[in-house]
Amino acid sequence: VRKLHVPEIAARVPTLLTDLYQFTMAYAYWRSGRHNEPAVFELFFRDNPFGGGFSLFSGMHDCLLFLRSFRFTDEDVEYLRSVLPPATDPAFFLFLRELDCSGVTLQSVPEGTVVFARVPLMEVSGPLAVVQLLETSLLCLVNYASLVCSNAARFRLAAGSRRKLLEMGLRRAQGPDGGLTASKYTYVGGFDMTSNVQAGFLFGIPVAGTMAHSYVTSFSSLEEVCGDPILPKTGDHDNIDLISLTKGWLGRVCELLGAEPGKIREGELAAFLSYAIAYPHNFLPVIDSYSVTCSGLLNFCAVALSLCELDYSPLGVRLDSGDLCSQSVEVRHVFRLCSEQFSIPAFQSLVIVGTNNISEYSMAELNKKENEIDVVGVGTHLVTCTRQPSLGCVYKLVEVRGSPRMKFSEDPEKSTVPGRKAVYRMLDTEGHPFLDLLCLCEEPAPKACVAVRCHPVVGNKTCQSITPAQVSCLRLDVYTKGQITHPLCSPAETREKVQSSIQTLHPRHKRLQKPDSYVVSFKVHLLLWRRGTTSGD
Amino acid sequence: VRKLHVPEIAARVPTLLTDLYQFTMAYAYWRSGRHNEPAVFELFFRDNPFGGGFSLFSGMHDCLLFLRSFRFTDEDVEYLRSVLPPATDPAFFLFLRELDCSGVTLQSVPEGTVVFARVPLMEVSGPLAVVQLLETSLLCLVNYASLVCSNAARFRLAAGSRRKLLEMGLRRAQGPDGGLTASKYTYVGGFDMTSNVQAGFLFGIPVAGTMAHSYVTSFSSLEEVCGDPILPKTGDHDNIDLISLTKGWLGRVCELLGAEPGKIREGELAAFLSYAIAYPHNFLPVIDSYSVTCSGLLNFCAVALSLCELDYSPLGVRLDSGDLCSQSVEVRHVFRLCSEQFSIPAFQSLVIVGTNNISEYSMAELNKKENEIDVVGVGTHLVTCTRQPSLGCVYKLVEVRGSPRMKFSEDPEKSTVPGRKAVYRMLDTEGHPFLDLLCLCEEPAPKACVAVRCHPVVGNKTCQSITPAQVSCLRLDVYTKGQITHPLCSPAETREKVQSSIQTLHPRHKRLQKPDSYVVSFKVHLLLWRRGTTSGD
Repeated sequence: VRKLHVPEIAARVPTLLTDLYQFTMAYAYWRSGRHNEPAVFELFFRDNPFGGGFSLFSGMHDCLLFLRSFRFTDEDVEYLRSVLPPATDPAFFLFLRELDCSGVTLQSVPEGTVVFARVPLMEVSGPLAVVQLLETSLLCLVNYASLVCSNAARFRLAAGSRRKLLEMGLRRAQGPDGGLTASKYTYVGGFDMTSNVQAGFLFGIPVAGTMAHSYVTSFSSLEEVCGDPILPKTGDHDNIDLISLTKGWLGRVCELLGAEPGKIREGELAAFLSYAIAYPHNFLPVIDSYSVTCSGLLNFCAVALSLCELDYSPLGVRLDSGDLCSQSVEVRHVFRLCSEQFSIPAFQSLVIVGTNNISEYSMAELNKKENEIDVVGVGTHLVTCTRQPSLGCVYKLVEVRGSPRMKFSEDPEKSTVPGRKAVYRMLDTEGHPFLDLLCLCEEPAPKACVAVRCHPVVGNKTCQSITPAQVSCLRLDVYTKGQITHPLCSPAETREKVQSSIQTLHPRHKRLQKPDSYVVSFKVHLLLWRRGTTSGD
Repeated sequence: VRKLHVPEIAARVPTLLTDLYQFTMAYAYWRSGRHNEPAVFELFFRDNPFGGGFSLFSGMHDCLLFLRSFRFTDEDVEYLRSVLPPATDPAFFLFLRELDCSGVTLQSVPEGTVVFARVPLMEVSGPLAVVQLLETSLLCLVNYASLVCSNAARFRLAAGSRRKLLEMGLRRAQGPDGGLTASKYTYVGGFDMTSNVQAGFLFGIPVAGTMAHSYVTSFSSLEEVCGDPILPKTGDHDNIDLISLTKGWLGRVCELLGAEPGKIREGELAAFLSYAIAYPHNFLPVIDSYSVTCSGLLNFCAVALSLCELDYSPLGVRLDSGDLCSQSVEVRHVFRLCSEQFSIPAFQSLVIVGTNNISEYSMAELNKKENEIDVVGVGTHLVTCTRQPSLGCVYKLVEVRGSPRMKFSEDPEKSTVPGRKAVYRMLDTEGHPFLDLLCLCEEPAPKACVAVRCHPVVGNKTCQSITPAQVSCLRLDVYTKGQITHPLCSPAETREKVQSSIQTLHPRHKRLQKPDSYVVSFKVHLLLWRRGTTSGD
């Protein structure tokens, strides 16, 4: 596995990939001599996506790499000179050319952690002009990564832990990088494999796939089966005529199942044979190009039985249209029948892959309807997050030169909570997190088994007193004055962390429909202080 | 404007950015000696997106660049060797290492053309293994580009031609490249500007933006206004004290409007003054950080009137929360009042920008409700296409070695129409396209003013006879045997073509809600021949 290094993040997220107003603001700060004032921004979202009870926080590692590579080239600066107003002081461009993130510090929730709405997930502090310039890039890196990772986790919960999940959405993704990001973060969120080869190459994700319908329909007769003859795995036989062998098995299968040989597609049989010759250890064809029961299943069984006779183990089949559940039951029934009738144990462990526009809803249905699907491939609904294709992370200024800032807005829910905060996660006696607590930074941390008074961030609930069995600090220092201070994990490691983070969550917050809301509260001191700020008391 | 050149497309769309099964199939073809058989694939989608009556075809230029750069590196091939089954013949990797698109020919609808469901938009022909390998990349490049371009065209139709449209969705896009692709193709689809600086840099799109709320809330008092004093545009005055000047205007504005000076935020005024000092020619602040009517609008008027007194022309304001329509009416009223009361003509032409989670629906509402919004900024709903976040383009094999291929599938609507086709667009006497006709390639082209019998592709309608006033051939040769044979247009040129292509479309197909279906038909010969293929007659 190659590690993502600086040139790659710089190619994906060039420093100009941001909104123009970041530069006009930076200039106005610079012009008034405020660009180096210490400032603090918070990154958070206001609602968990997909109507769910939780989210997964992702994209932070990319943010770290971005911070480390943040630099403007001469070419960047020349372009900016051409689009900023002509009144811009030329000295500002020299300033931009020298900028980097050596003065920036990032405190963040670790990659792959279960998180909740309204909790400040990242705190970015540093020179006002620089931390302002970072806004769009950080949001862009966190928003989709967290969204699609959370979506994958929901598909994983809907599927149960037994089924293997394959991501295969590249062709329907929002741009090539949308597809690559989706492959990475759906794996992190709980998928097992991807069809995306580049994602395997860059991130070490297991890749999978065998054939499309076009492969099957490209064959029309057995005369096209002309590769070298297949060799038996054990050297007992010579000169195997695989076509004759398979024709023999096809006759026996038709007889067993009472099928009409006249409806069997010869081109499909040729395609399956050719694939089996190419990959005798990896035989898993798509069997619905014409008709599963009248042709594809019979052709599969004939070729697979031939492979078994030659001591190879066929892998299984893929279904890609129609009612996957009922077809899988019928296919499994035929596999069992063949296994028993022909004494072929390998037919007991064949895999059935289902891929047909699977949504979270249809994934959940698989647990309700009888079916025999072992592996589910998911594309469009997973990678484009059709139920909610964006996560609304925002980046808000909370402090300048040590004094708190807030925005009120014409929409009350868009108002922000001023000041730097520390964030603690409270666990109950069973180890489940039950409340995230926002405190003032300078206050002492809450302690295990000590009651603390707090007030929910959302809604009109009154103060409550809670006593955590354990307390953990939710954010870590991950980037300090220009240095990455937190180990970067591989996607596989983050995937493990995701699963253990979800594991600790109480089932009532994990329900896909109508979950119980997880409580996020202010420590009461902070609340009083907030009231003080807003009302001027 | 820089032209996208090969290294850039290769970075965005590496040749491994595809599904694994393309390689397993390529190997099976190669193993059976079929990899160089001439094959033809068609690319099309089955339904217009967003419940609309048309789509815009985009992404073709990227496909051309991709074809030109298509090559596997040693590193790619080594990775493939590690993930393909161990049984893979090593000679196959030498074959891959030598592959390119010198044998590929692409016929395509031109970039930026209005297109309809079920019409084969691209025909890709060449060696079977190569054209199969191209599938995922071509789909990935066309699907999202066409989707977001079509979405932008709908926003443009909803907005009417008068309003300026600004794309500002980068932070909510699906991955960094999702944002960049969105900026490019929403401009092509009819937007006027983007906030995305990299999109301006790469594609020459006009960029726009001034300030965020964080800029406003970063100021708390007039003491922070410390840039060099603003110089009057004409040299008549010396030593202007802008703060005193603005305080004077603020008093007069409050008096005029009966506003309470005590509710005005000093920090907001400081922010506006600092921005005006930095960019006196480009003053367009966001005025809802605290309260539009109690603070932001008054502060704007005071600073803008001071600028006018110094012979600068302020640009306008941005509203980003609450009811944009009613606020814009109130803001315009105040602008007119100031203009008349203080004899400031510049206040008659101030621009009001509205940005607050605008959807196609709320854009259309702007034409129904009284409002004074001149520029609309659109982010999330535009770039992520919330109504339908993917376009279902597919890539289907229709011919191998000169003989037609089709797939049946368990879902009847997934069946394909075999054989190579020519596609003609029929225009009526007013120049509106009214029917796209699919013919056999070898048939003579339909002629203007000559009746032709045809049969709709979808539904059970019977044959009809139609007589076009004009006929145009819908697809062009754009890539022939390894060479791009069609001029690549700039995004601005394609944008022009989009608007003229939409212009020719009859309004009944352009309606955003319940448009009339555009008819796509087979020439009757083709239909008979198709029936022949499927039933074996």
